[in-house]
Amino acid sequence: MRINAHALSLASTLHRSGKNPLYRSKTLTPLSFSTMAATTASSTHPPAAAAGAPAAPAGNVVSSAASREAFRQSVVNTLERRLFYIPSFKIYRGVAGLYDYGPPGCAVKSNVLSFWRQHFVLEEGMLEVDCPCVTPEVVLKASGHVDKFTDLMVKDEKTGTCYRADHLLKDHCKDKLEKNANLTPEKVAELNHVMATLDDMSTEQLGAKIKEYGIKAPETNNQLSDPYPFNLMFQTSIGPTGLNTGYMRPETAQGIFVNFKDLYYYNGNKLPFAAAQIGQAFRNEISPRQGLLRVREFTLAEIEHFVDPEDKSHPKFSDVADLKFLMFPREEQLTGQSSKTLRLGDAVSNGTINNETLGYFIGRVYLFLTRLGIEKDRLRFRQHLPNEMAHYAADCWDAEIECSYGWIECVGIADRSAYDLKAHTEKSGVALVAAEKFAEPREVEKLVITPSKKDLGLAFKGNQKMVLEALDAMSEVEALEMKSKLESNGEAEFQVCTLNKTVTITNKMVSISKEKKKEHQRVFTPSVIEPSFGIGRIIYCLYEHCFYTRAGKTEDEQLNVFGFPSLVAPIKCTVFPLVKNEQFDAVARDISKALTASGISHIIDVTGTSIGKRYARTDEIGVPLAVTVDSTTTVTIRERDSKAQVRVKITEVASIVKRFVEGHSTWGDIQWDYPANHGTDENVPEENA
Amino acid sequence: MRINAHALSLASTLHRSGKNPLYRSKTLTPLSFSTMAATTASSTHPPAAAAGAPAAPAGNVVSSAASREAFRQSVVNTLERRLFYIPSFKIYRGVAGLYDYGPPGCAVKSNVLSFWRQHFVLEEGMLEVDCPCVTPEVVLKASGHVDKFTDLMVKDEKTGTCYRADHLLKDHCKDKLEKNANLTPEKVAELNHVMATLDDMSTEQLGAKIKEYGIKAPETNNQLSDPYPFNLMFQTSIGPTGLNTGYMRPETAQGIFVNFKDLYYYNGNKLPFAAAQIGQAFRNEISPRQGLLRVREFTLAEIEHFVDPEDKSHPKFSDVADLKFLMFPREEQLTGQSSKTLRLGDAVSNGTINNETLGYFIGRVYLFLTRLGIEKDRLRFRQHLPNEMAHYAADCWDAEIECSYGWIECVGIADRSAYDLKAHTEKSGVALVAAEKFAEPREVEKLVITPSKKDLGLAFKGNQKMVLEALDAMSEVEALEMKSKLESNGEAEFQVCTLNKTVTITNKMVSISKEKKKEHQRVFTPSVIEPSFGIGRIIYCLYEHCFYTRAGKTEDEQLNVFGFPSLVAPIKCTVFPLVKNEQFDAVARDISKALTASGISHIIDVTGTSIGKRYARTDEIGVPLAVTVDSTTTVTIRERDSKAQVRVKITEVASIVKRFVEGHSTWGDIQWDYPANHGTDENVPEENA
Repeated sequence: MRINAHALSLASTLHRSGKNPLYRSKTLTPLSFSTMAATTASSTHPPAAAAGAPAAPAGNVVSSAASREAFRQSVVNTLERRLFYIPSFKIYRGVAGLYDYGPPGCAVKSNVLSFWRQHFVLEEGMLEVDCPCVTPEVVLKASGHVDKFTDLMVKDEKTGTCYRADHLLKDHCKDKLEKNANLTPEKVAELNHVMATLDDMSTEQLGAKIKEYGIKAPETNNQLSDPYPFNLMFQTSIGPTGLNTGYMRPETAQGIFVNFKDLYYYNGNKLPFAAAQIGQAFRNEISPRQGLLRVREFTLAEIEHFVDPEDKSHPKFSDVADLKFLMFPREEQLTGQSSKTLRLGDAVSNGTINNETLGYFIGRVYLFLTRLGIEKDRLRFRQHLPNEMAHYAADCWDAEIECSYGWIECVGIADRSAYDLKAHTEKSGVALVAAEKFAEPREVEKLVITPSKKDLGLAFKGNQKMVLEALDAMSEVEALEMKSKLESNGEAEFQVCTLNKTVTITNKMVSISKEKKKEHQRVFTPSVIEPSFGIGRIIYCLYEHCFYTRAGKTEDEQLNVFGFPSLVAPIKCTVFPLVKNEQFDAVARDISKALTASGISHIIDVTGTSIGKRYARTDEIGVPLAVTVDSTTTVTIRERDSKAQVRVKITEVASIVKRFVEGHSTWGDIQWDYPANHGTDENVPEENA
Repeated sequence: MRINAHALSLASTLHRSGKNPLYRSKTLTPLSFSTMAATTASSTHPPAAAAGAPAAPAGNVVSSAASREAFRQSVVNTLERRLFYIPSFKIYRGVAGLYDYGPPGCAVKSNVLSFWRQHFVLEEGMLEVDCPCVTPEVVLKASGHVDKFTDLMVKDEKTGTCYRADHLLKDHCKDKLEKNANLTPEKVAELNHVMATLDDMSTEQLGAKIKEYGIKAPETNNQLSDPYPFNLMFQTSIGPTGLNTGYMRPETAQGIFVNFKDLYYYNGNKLPFAAAQIGQAFRNEISPRQGLLRVREFTLAEIEHFVDPEDKSHPKFSDVADLKFLMFPREEQLTGQSSKTLRLGDAVSNGTINNETLGYFIGRVYLFLTRLGIEKDRLRFRQHLPNEMAHYAADCWDAEIECSYGWIECVGIADRSAYDLKAHTEKSGVALVAAEKFAEPREVEKLVITPSKKDLGLAFKGNQKMVLEALDAMSEVEALEMKSKLESNGEAEFQVCTLNKTVTITNKMVSISKEKKKEHQRVFTPSVIEPSFGIGRIIYCLYEHCFYTRAGKTEDEQLNVFGFPSLVAPIKCTVFPLVKNEQFDAVARDISKALTASGISHIIDVTGTSIGKRYARTDEIGVPLAVTVDSTTTVTIRERDSKAQVRVKITEVASIVKRFVEGHSTWGDIQWDYPANHGTDENVPEENA
């Protein structure tokens, strides 16, 4: 829904429903730092990876608000200075909530998406589709977005400036609690209660609280309007007439749902199957906060796994059943406990996780995120509480990653039952269903209602049609009840909604019987299990998890390092001629050609800068390997995290680098195969020259 | 610009300018089929690739309008039936000009984009960026899109239905020419002239012609409104106030231009460098035609190569200089000749192509397209005529690909000079410039204008400021002229625009002299060379070029084949157990696992269908290799175009397939290494079983 929680919740994806107030997602633990913070934050230590694979840099767990803020500042400064991202349209003073990915950020994103395709689409044989962002109104009417995809807004009555109503109320409560030491215990409890229940407040309740507390517009102290819903979709018009309203999609999922029929056919009319889509989604935030975490345009990667609701087992579940990781089930949240490490197979078998397929995806998401470089102990799977879930959802879990903003929802994994396909079936009139063909026809008992038009006509004249329709629409329970009344009394009272009155039905007017029929198939609306990935959020958390600092030449000088796994590193390798010299430059060019031929992204740095500075410069954008040309026959390769070096023949460079960045050799393997070049100590001349 | 040409011109990318009527692109040879059409079209022959690498299927050149139409229908039917694409939101009756890529189409697109990244971004060390689609008005005001990105529209005065004015006029002329055999030669000439000059007509001229010919609304025969410009951008509003107009970007280029300063810094303040971007662009067409070629949302891949206007040489030009391919220079177009094969090096050295950098990119685009599978003799580079180019452009070439719609502009390669950076410098006030540092300071002569404020004050009193500013703003020519008049006459007449009158300046009031100064650098606005790729158009043309049919079991049965190069094939390999059998299924699963581990996209088809049908099914989506499991030790691999088979050990399958699809082995190499399995004849049982 709108409030507090909203500030931390992923994309629109996670907030679909046709029905308020269930149209929401809520994070009950915003900004609450895990109690597992064990090390201090200000100096993060480099990994000791000299002898083996470069370990992921140790956890940058930060313990206090101030050090969190300081840590975030140094990450963000590095990101912005090295153009991982750029505030969009900066020369025009930018637009809140819009960011560009600069060259290294763009490469990281491209690597993350490639790995996503490999890990999900290719390995699971998913059907990938690519649908437009411009979406006609009817589709988003069916999905519920046109009516319910809103935040509550208030306006400064004089200037017209807009605010999120919940933000103002929350800020007011926080401010009061922080600045007034002499509040009564009752007042403290009240303010805390307001903050805790922001999500459940109606428009009227929120408005009343704002009035009661006398909250004014922050900048001007002017009066505020009553809160009213603001739809978060960017609206536009399709075609030249101005009559066809369209929206920029708030999620990619709807493009998959409307194609269900074709995709089911493509899959040979067989379930289960999954469709996937990567693409831009849009959300016209009222006032974007939290930098890269809450933006107005973002990349989503979504999977819709369609499954028979009567069989949610998964053939590959055993592949992930033994994984153990942090889970935060409903029960633990409601009883004030913390998250705990559980075996996935147990969580499914004891019913904590609703079904195998949902569990399988939770496991695959865990593998995806940790292989990208997300730290295992700063990743948890949190189950939605009953009041966070839409009424139709069977079970929902969020992959939350801890960063300096707290635990951030980065992937939502929801069993949405048949809701979406049913909504589009209803609106479009096209049956989005699957069929299970029986090996042999099955005999089933069906209730048959046979009205006598003649008798109904005589009794109800012009109202006959409405009575007929109402009889047809009876549920099995209602019909059986009528049947027994007709048998015992010869007549039954019957409520006809469309006539707004009760009529008397006699046993001449209708016969109700049970008949046996042969059925050749079972037709049903599939359930959908939806893992939905906020790519930008995952990348931002990855930046924080991979970032560390280490001492430079002097103890005062702190050097920044992004310890990216090779998989995501924006550039895999740099090539440095040690000194400016035509021979070395020629060797560097030859190595560059060989790397290009192997498809290894790399840069040559021929600036005359000291080698130490050049290493530092590439460490700061997370380049795993640096090749330094210091002779015309052999060169050194230096690993980023350990700073250890080996000496190799020029002709071997490309294949060694390729094996390492593709994960076929560890740095330990390479050190075993090739002689070390100096030590790994910080004082070797090469490093600090 | 708007008319006829517009129907064939690529994306907005190619139509930027601040100035009408130069804001346009024009294709002078729409739908004119090349005279080189040599073979008949209806039956296209399979390649004879048995002994070597599978050759690209021979040219599907079609000679008549009817056979072109028939050919297109069979391609499009196959594409739609196999879900290469799907009309978007089909269950809601769709939206004109919006298409989804279904699973195989999405895979082809992803392969094309990966190769684009490899071929351009990686090999040329480009800086890739990723900017939002939502763009604030100020940016597109500066670029000229807000004012000039329009088509002329007329409305049915009763129903409000909208039409492209030029379409109606063109259709009218065509219709008249086709249906009236007894037109006078004068009338025929007139109608042809109108069609040829549609692009150059003003709003008024177009309106007058529509009136003169009495053209009515096609469906209703109602009166039409006068033509008026309709802006083709999708408009929206950013943020909740409704005061900040935004648009969905009509091209990705502007995101690069506004980041020039940061990117230049990122590149070490050195020129040349190129930035690149892949992303969605939007164009709210009045009435989309031509299926997949003219859509309302499309993927662009754009490069902006920034270069010193005084040095447009390219260090790698020699790599492409020897390429020979079809070019259609201005001269040949104006003199009614056809395109001809030229050596790229010659075209640059004799000035046909303006400079080396532009030539280099033309060569790289040629390599890109032909490696994707575009036929060499159905690809030409056409130079823009003087009246097609914007006034600032130095030279423009379009890569045009011939398909059933005619020659289609798929890539535009333009030397846009400094226009874009200057436009944003002016609007934003941020100098988007580069500097060439001199090794040694250079002495330059500069004109110095020194006014005497005292004398000016005495003479002009309150107007002194305006006169001062006007003196300061004099050009070098004006100043030198004044200097000589002051020296000869002691005074000079001087027009002060801000005063709207001429004043007399005496030699006491101003001294004008030339002084020598030392300069340490030259500051200038870089030129930009822009290759811009319409990815969807390239893919559509690729479909047509790769499609062929061959006889099935009977001569009457025509089987469809997409002869995609491995690089773009949506799926690289299929695995078929010959008969339903647990042992064969287990082998197929093992092979599948090995293929997954090698990153090879593949599918297993375990349906009981005959092997011939399964081959045909995968040929139709262009799968290059099929592995048939017919024993538990060895299997056959069949190549799509030659239908030849080899027998290999199960453990070798993945590595053989990988080598082939990555281009390290040809099919000929594989046939050399492994024993053939039966012949390649169509009558072998395996093929037609």
